[in-house]
Amino acid sequence: MKNSIHQEKAQKWFKQLRDDIVFTMESIEKDYASKMGGTAGQYDITPWSRMDISGQPGGGETAIMRDGLVFEKAGVNISTVWGEFSEEFRDKIPGASDNDGGFWASGISLVMHPRNPFVPPVHMNTRHIITSKSWFGGGADLNPIYKNDDDTKTFHDALKTCCDQHDPEYYTQYSKWADEYFWNAHRNEPRGVGGVFYDYLNNNDDAEWDKNFSFTKDVGKTFNEIYPQIVRVHMFDTYDKEHEDFMLFRRGRYAEFNLIHDRGTVFGLKTGGNVDAILMSLPPRVTW
Amino acid sequence: MKNSIHQEKAQKWFKQLRDDIVFTMESIEKDYASKMGGTAGQYDITPWSRMDISGQPGGGETAIMRDGLVFEKAGVNISTVWGEFSEEFRDKIPGASDNDGGFWASGISLVMHPRNPFVPPVHMNTRHIITSKSWFGGGADLNPIYKNDDDTKTFHDALKTCCDQHDPEYYTQYSKWADEYFWNAHRNEPRGVGGVFYDYLNNNDDAEWDKNFSFTKDVGKTFNEIYPQIVRVHMFDTYDKEHEDFMLFRRGRYAEFNLIHDRGTVFGLKTGGNVDAILMSLPPRVTW
Repeated sequence: MKNSIHQEKAQKWFKQLRDDIVFTMESIEKDYASKMGGTAGQYDITPWSRMDISGQPGGGETAIMRDGLVFEKAGVNISTVWGEFSEEFRDKIPGASDNDGGFWASGISLVMHPRNPFVPPVHMNTRHIITSKSWFGGGADLNPIYKNDDDTKTFHDALKTCCDQHDPEYYTQYSKWADEYFWNAHRNEPRGVGGVFYDYLNNNDDAEWDKNFSFTKDVGKTFNEIYPQIVRVHMFDTYDKEHEDFMLFRRGRYAEFNLIHDRGTVFGLKTGGNVDAILMSLPPRVTW
Repeated sequence: MKNSIHQEKAQKWFKQLRDDIVFTMESIEKDYASKMGGTAGQYDITPWSRMDISGQPGGGETAIMRDGLVFEKAGVNISTVWGEFSEEFRDKIPGASDNDGGFWASGISLVMHPRNPFVPPVHMNTRHIITSKSWFGGGADLNPIYKNDDDTKTFHDALKTCCDQHDPEYYTQYSKWADEYFWNAHRNEPRGVGGVFYDYLNNNDDAEWDKNFSFTKDVGKTFNEIYPQIVRVHMFDTYDKEHEDFMLFRRGRYAEFNLIHDRGTVFGLKTGGNVDAILMSLPPRVTW
């Protein structure tokens, strides 16, 4: 059920959310700088066209902050792409075979790698995909270097409140799905402390589209409220080289997940995506 | 064509080659130390049992040098494992379905990550696998940070000489296969400057086994002669932070290849291998 108004609304929202998140994270940088000195980190926003990369339609913008005071590397991507899935790939995507592989996809994806080992890295992504079907998907998960029960509770409580406003079943289902999805199978360990993950939230009619879009927007807004709170709790924490070394080690596990298991990464790499945009999720420095 | 004498001979050779390589690389470390001072790097050899990891038979030894003067991280693994491939996996391995998935595999695998950006990283692996079929496979490829035509020629010439002693077709076939195999598809770029790659070198009778084993041994010996020569040419080269930063960046591409594309890595992770041994190939420090 392709609907150009829906597409436009979704695409516009992802861009608005990107702007909001960029504003929030740059505010954190400024607040840090005003207390501790130094130059507040800023995002560089770079538009790209998929036509230039794979000859297929669509494009997006990467927003990346490097060497900030709080964020060592923090990328926020938005993109809107369409075209046809390869024969090999279309069987794996709902409604793509019925549609000669035709698809449209728009979304936002972010990963934050803080400098301080006590500020947890985080990931958030929401997307709207249309084949012969139409659905929303997304998720957010916290990936602390050192687990902190208060942060975990803060993060999960906020996501639960968000979910509960839309459907009493969501939090139970989607936090469980996050535990399953963000699982570093080859290490037999979780990637982090979870959050929510949802997919194939189908839009069979306009009312469902409105409901699912509203939920998807709230996941983004919730992220942009709660993660900054957690950052501000820890961004002045003191740490030493041992903590930093452990952070670099744990970032290795994060990189392994993204390169071996992450479905979004595979989706992007297999559909002629912007490799640099897709792999902006990788940590700035890693040790193995 | 399972043959316990063949299995024993192959397994013994891989261990002998490991000992030879450890000796060679530690000699390089000592020579460097005697000229420049510092403590020569040494390998730590650790036996492991697969029974402890996945409950399946087999095991091996990891030999890893960390923080050497010449080698920042250099791992050499040997392992011999057997059991049954999963239903999902056996269709992908020649002769495994005819054998209820039963397999035996023994091999050596190494990756060297030098400290000096002008000393090229290298990979070498040879293996003997038995299902209802029996074959050898292996390869070696050079992965310079800065391409150097002399080193590339030295490396390829030695492998060509080795190949030519066994079959006039080998070098042409196997260097081409290396170019195809060590291809970082998502980046549309080669991993390095190639070398040789061969697989499914079938042993249909004892004579073929002898021939293929002899070739496989020579690939290992050739590696252990030629790579040290290249290391010794460059290990005293001067470099600055810019060179080092570029090395850390290029190591990211190497890590991407291993985690996204490398068949050996997937084989290991899907067959209950020792994750730490498999991923010892990852560079010690990486930036993205």
